[in-house]
Amino acid sequence: MDHQKVLKIGLFGFGVVGEGLYKVLQQTPSLKANIVKVCIKNVDKKRNAPAELFTTHKNDLLLDPNINVIVEVIDDSVAAFDIVSTALLQGKAVVSASKKMIADNLPAILALQKQTGLPFLYEAAVCASIPVIRNLEEYYDNDLLHSIKAIVNGSTNFILTKMFEDKLSFQAALILAQQLGFAESNPKLDVEGYDALNKWTVLLSHAYGIVEKPENILFSGIQNIQLSDAAVAQEKKLDIKLIAQAKKLANGKVAAFVLPQLISQSEPLSFVKNEYNGVVIESGFADKQFFYGKGAGSFPTASAVLSDISALRYNYCYEYKKLYQQAPHELTSDYFLKVYVSFDDIKNVPKDKFEWIEEWHAQEDRKYLIGVLHVKELIQSNWWKENNNSLILTPDPIIDNLDIVHLKKKSLELAGVL
Amino acid sequence: MDHQKVLKIGLFGFGVVGEGLYKVLQQTPSLKANIVKVCIKNVDKKRNAPAELFTTHKNDLLLDPNINVIVEVIDDSVAAFDIVSTALLQGKAVVSASKKMIADNLPAILALQKQTGLPFLYEAAVCASIPVIRNLEEYYDNDLLHSIKAIVNGSTNFILTKMFEDKLSFQAALILAQQLGFAESNPKLDVEGYDALNKWTVLLSHAYGIVEKPENILFSGIQNIQLSDAAVAQEKKLDIKLIAQAKKLANGKVAAFVLPQLISQSEPLSFVKNEYNGVVIESGFADKQFFYGKGAGSFPTASAVLSDISALRYNYCYEYKKLYQQAPHELTSDYFLKVYVSFDDIKNVPKDKFEWIEEWHAQEDRKYLIGVLHVKELIQSNWWKENNNSLILTPDPIIDNLDIVHLKKKSLELAGVL
Repeated sequence: MDHQKVLKIGLFGFGVVGEGLYKVLQQTPSLKANIVKVCIKNVDKKRNAPAELFTTHKNDLLLDPNINVIVEVIDDSVAAFDIVSTALLQGKAVVSASKKMIADNLPAILALQKQTGLPFLYEAAVCASIPVIRNLEEYYDNDLLHSIKAIVNGSTNFILTKMFEDKLSFQAALILAQQLGFAESNPKLDVEGYDALNKWTVLLSHAYGIVEKPENILFSGIQNIQLSDAAVAQEKKLDIKLIAQAKKLANGKVAAFVLPQLISQSEPLSFVKNEYNGVVIESGFADKQFFYGKGAGSFPTASAVLSDISALRYNYCYEYKKLYQQAPHELTSDYFLKVYVSFDDIKNVPKDKFEWIEEWHAQEDRKYLIGVLHVKELIQSNWWKENNNSLILTPDPIIDNLDIVHLKKKSLELAGVL
Repeated sequence: MDHQKVLKIGLFGFGVVGEGLYKVLQQTPSLKANIVKVCIKNVDKKRNAPAELFTTHKNDLLLDPNINVIVEVIDDSVAAFDIVSTALLQGKAVVSASKKMIADNLPAILALQKQTGLPFLYEAAVCASIPVIRNLEEYYDNDLLHSIKAIVNGSTNFILTKMFEDKLSFQAALILAQQLGFAESNPKLDVEGYDALNKWTVLLSHAYGIVEKPENILFSGIQNIQLSDAAVAQEKKLDIKLIAQAKKLANGKVAAFVLPQLISQSEPLSFVKNEYNGVVIESGFADKQFFYGKGAGSFPTASAVLSDISALRYNYCYEYKKLYQQAPHELTSDYFLKVYVSFDDIKNVPKDKFEWIEEWHAQEDRKYLIGVLHVKELIQSNWWKENNNSLILTPDPIIDNLDIVHLKKKSLELAGVL
């Protein structure tokens, strides 16, 4: 597409993001991008736009040769994948915000991009307004990525902030998030970590060239975190955040997961409060980088869609360099994690599965321990999510296989066992 | 240039950044970019690279048809401009890290890019490792930029951090910064704000399409800040930072300057400590964004140069959309500033130039006041930099003309004068 050509957009979805985009485009005439038609499901809902803009027939958009761009911001990932594939096969560039659809269909989506050579951009799907995909693709494409850690779900971060700062209960904080429009239509998707997992699945392909099914990545949400956990954290001058992370281990393989974590207040991610998102990239040359911005909401999400639309002018495509131009990395499940576990009853915690236990606090109202276990213990069992147990990673949780023997010995010495 | 072609680089300068780039390129063979020749001034200095790589004749690089990329990281802005212009006119793509050269020659550099149509990239010139130019060019190109505030000089930020956190004197902190290699060869360039001013001059063209001479932009450094100022700030739970900023006023014109400022500890820029840099962008759609990373040092700066080199593969050029494709903004000097001034003797502070004074602290060891004055009072006179006076902006310093009458009345009422 050349710079003078008008982008003619077929838009699927007119919810929070779709309507936001419609308003944003009205305020940016310099972009020369017009929404020609909007496909919606419910024709009876009142919309803040002319009635003739709307249709309920997807082919009014997908088969219209006058439309050269499809933007898809609907809430149904099966329908979204159908729309995206048809649009690409019909020769249209596509912009999407559907993290679940992309995470569920990554191999097919990669194949469609190869087959058609057309742009499929989805910056809004991860961290909304923060340009993390574009920067990983373009800016850190040749740097050596040591690790990437992020708060990618604004809703859970909002809830944790309210639990910490206003001492709200989990339920009260969740209701507030819903009232303010920061939560997915089904709050379970946020709270139990599914939304963060989907975003992380997408990001791993750009960060490390890892194409993995979401169900193969270890994750949890914040559903088990108690006010007492927050109290312990504050006593230790730590925060609790739901962190998505990936780290290259000594053997070159990558540890990746989404789990709640205790973090130091001097860490950049500790600065990320309420509905904000944040990403910390540590790399060989650029060193530590931190990106911070709104991860949810109508305009912040629409702004990312807008930037993608703008990039269509020069036919910008993701290159997935880490996947295609370098040796892609491999996920590993062979490392150890240092974790905090609080519990009502110790019989629900398999003590013997721990390599060692560093702290016991049995005298508190709510008991807890800090110990080290193999990640497979979390992958293969569910005890840590059941019976009111609450598992939270410690500030620097990953222990490489190479270090485990040495650290275990040191820890046992400290405890006076050796 | 196509993706398979090897980039053959002629490098000017083998100091901290040049040598960093040399090492970084050795670690990124996938980039297919080789340094063919390095031009240096002092042939006797010992270098960590093969002797046959070096020359002292610039034309060995500039006139070699085998070299298709010139990277310029020297410390002499006049020589740098000569190198850059010759290289572009010789048909070579150019990457530079010389903020002063670019700031001093912006109109000529814009003309050269237009004339030759060749890429001239300089991400490393502003905030080193933080991709602020690229993101302003590509990602916020259609958003409505309300303001941009940044810490762009790592050396002064390091000094202020040490004054605040370790209670070092200004001189002791400066010496430490020099020992650690965070300061320019001439510390005056950092300390008195020249380096920040040059960076800001460059950034204004990408943020607002403003092409202005550095000498027309209001600036100061941190040379007058006293330990007593730090004490007052800490009492008010504020930090002092050297902030470069630009803000769109109600009339659509832009206020821009580089001055020390008191900032709240909940502000993202307060998080930026030691040699780090940070940029906060506030825009209509994306809302508040914060980028944070190392703004100085060998590898962080080289990483930005590396990203520019990588972008040459697809002939990436800055488009300066705010300048060429939209109505460029205009700088204004018609607004008011709320300032803190500490002084040894009130006779050196022209009290009658203030619209109103909100606080007087005459009983302290070192006296200070907080008041509002027209920005022209700072542009046209020097009293605020002389006689041991120290002027620091208040946390939200810019007062639009539209608001001044109302605010003045309110302030005088509060003081019991009206």
